[in-house]
Amino acid sequence: MSFSAIIQQDTLADALNAATAIVEECKLNTTPSGIQITAVDPANVAMVDLSINESAFESYEADGGTLGVNVERLLDVVGMGDSGDLVQLELDQETRKLNIEISGLSYTLALIDPDSIRQEPDIPDLDLDATLVFEAATLSRGISAADLCSDHVSFAADPDAETFHIKADGDTDDVDLEVDSDELLSAQVDDDCESLFSLDYLSDMERPIGSDTEVSLRLGSEMPIKLRYSLADGDVSVTNMLAPRISSE
Amino acid sequence: MSFSAIIQQDTLADALNAATAIVEECKLNTTPSGIQITAVDPANVAMVDLSINESAFESYEADGGTLGVNVERLLDVVGMGDSGDLVQLELDQETRKLNIEISGLSYTLALIDPDSIRQEPDIPDLDLDATLVFEAATLSRGISAADLCSDHVSFAADPDAETFHIKADGDTDDVDLEVDSDELLSAQVDDDCESLFSLDYLSDMERPIGSDTEVSLRLGSEMPIKLRYSLADGDVSVTNMLAPRISSE
Amino acid sequence: MSFSAIIQQDTLADALNAATAIVEECKLNTTPSGIQITAVDPANVAMVDLSINESAFESYEADGGTLGVNVERLLDVVGMGDSGDLVQLELDQETRKLNIEISGLSYTLALIDPDSIRQEPDIPDLDLDATLVFEAATLSRGISAADLCSDHVSFAADPDAETFHIKADGDTDDVDLEVDSDELLSAQVDDDCESLFSLDYLSDMERPIGSDTEVSLRLGSEMPIKLRYSLADGDVSVTNMLAPRISSE
Repeated sequence: MSFSAIIQQDTLADALNAATAIVEECKLNTTPSGIQITAVDPANVAMVDLSINESAFESYEADGGTLGVNVERLLDVVGMGDSGDLVQLELDQETRKLNIEISGLSYTLALIDPDSIRQEPDIPDLDLDATLVFEAATLSRGISAADLCSDHVSFAADPDAETFHIKADGDTDDVDLEVDSDELLSAQVDDDCESLFSLDYLSDMERPIGSDTEVSLRLGSEMPIKLRYSLADGDVSVTNMLAPRISSE
Repeated sequence: MSFSAIIQQDTLADALNAATAIVEECKLNTTPSGIQITAVDPANVAMVDLSINESAFESYEADGGTLGVNVERLLDVVGMGDSGDLVQLELDQETRKLNIEISGLSYTLALIDPDSIRQEPDIPDLDLDATLVFEAATLSRGISAADLCSDHVSFAADPDAETFHIKADGDTDDVDLEVDSDELLSAQVDDDCESLFSLDYLSDMERPIGSDTEVSLRLGSEMPIKLRYSLADGDVSVTNMLAPRISSE
Repeated sequence: MSFSAIIQQDTLADALNAATAIVEECKLNTTPSGIQITAVDPANVAMVDLSINESAFESYEADGGTLGVNVERLLDVVGMGDSGDLVQLELDQETRKLNIEISGLSYTLALIDPDSIRQEPDIPDLDLDATLVFEAATLSRGISAADLCSDHVSFAADPDAETFHIKADGDTDDVDLEVDSDELLSAQVDDDCESLFSLDYLSDMERPIGSDTEVSLRLGSEMPIKLRYSLADGDVSVTNMLAPRISSE
């Protein structure tokens, strides 16, 4: 297989950030149409499915093939550059290492046998009841509020109301953040729905998202959520899934 | 009892900061003229006596009564807002919980049985020899200087000099910060006086005070200090007392 | 002996920073032409040789003599001032303490018996092959890059190339930062040379240097490096030496 690519530092860093929120090691599928990553955390609770479209690259050549990568290490290397810099990635087929060039720095990253990396999950096709669009800052605020009194957070939507709720029930206290039409960029709710999630996973997922990035949250009743957003003018698209906790109520 | 109030976020946060410097839980006395808190730390060394005048509120209704509150938790909730926001507090008499509303967030804070909270101290009426007025930044600098060589700090004033001293004697080194008329906004010293204090308590007390806040320090000889300041254009007034350490000299 | 001096806070702080990067205690040689410090770390790996020229001082009087000083403590005291402030140092011959005055603060620093301080090292006169001049930011970047994959870093120069390399070989990855003529302010390379160093020591050495300070690096083959720079318009000059690690290759 052959692979070589040149991409803006900030585009690659933002995309890798979404992967490192879920896993330390993953498979980079280098397809002719771009790089694609699907990964699940060790507990099978949180998933990421991301693609960096071929149009995101200044130059891109790949004949298909999978690279096993320590994505945290790769992100650290990319982090040595500034946002305006170009990053050059090139697979050395003989040594099976990835050469990374960024503003005078040459880094040789040992690849990992893809077979030794946790298998890529299937992304389930879910029938979800509500789709809510808002800025990531709203999600971040909801997580902080829930964290005041609980380790869990629930999302709730109601077809009759024009609001969406991020709530938490703690041992003694409870909190409810109402996200109203001022903050909801769009809302489509077909049925009442509410699901409960672990705050730890959710905040790992939310952390890499820029606060003014528009996110789309799809929600059901005691179902996983799908959180989607795009970066780099649409050239990078990220879908996160998070499995629900069973509500104890 | 009934209690409901609306107040600017920054006023409430600044006032609660002064309480959390001393205690984690305290009694909020909701009198018709405002909220009043008196509390002492578990070691009976540091006290706070603070009042938020009824005029500090946008709206205020209380028929008298005491709320037992985890004031650190309450401050965290208030901290979810920005300084321009309004905070609404309302006692739910049936559930004995405090409802807090702040910019879309509804938080229900469980109250604590006031009888389970350490008793409010009597504020002793002390006959102190000196009153010195300066900005909190001066106190902060004296604490940092003393911390270079000791765990204790002493305050000293002399009726003949136009200066005030913040000093520390360490095992090997010693330090003396002279606060002169450039920094003393006013000084009235009736007699020589000097007292020694624990740096830990003093710096907890000083930390929440804005560096340009004018503080009035009343001082005696081996007597407690009284540190007073006001916030929110005088609508909040805070008095801290700190018991002296017996000087080993 | 007598010693008294007045100096700008930032000049003294910058000079002491270079000493505290290597040792906690050292000897201050107060010669008529200025203060001179030579010290080596406990493992005999890193050395500092620094002088604060008499011209750096606003006022300076010394008849020669050595003060044993906890230089970290002295730096903390100097750090109580702001960069525009003047620091006054005066030896109290009776108590053998150093009085430090800085913007209203009087600090009495107990001196240490110079005989109890590790002996000053001889600075070896080395015949080194290359002299490279660049801004400290380049060194800092090389250290960060090497730290991605190793605990060691090597410096390499080649008389034919117009570049200088900061490299690291890790267990699986390796990195090479090429410092080219854009960043090299001057380069004189008489022979091929490369030496390997501990990253920990090197980064301690580099940390106090302002990122736009011009540094001169002298390098040989499996020889110590000499890193020189000056501060305060040349009134303070610092030479660091670092012993090489024997390359395992």
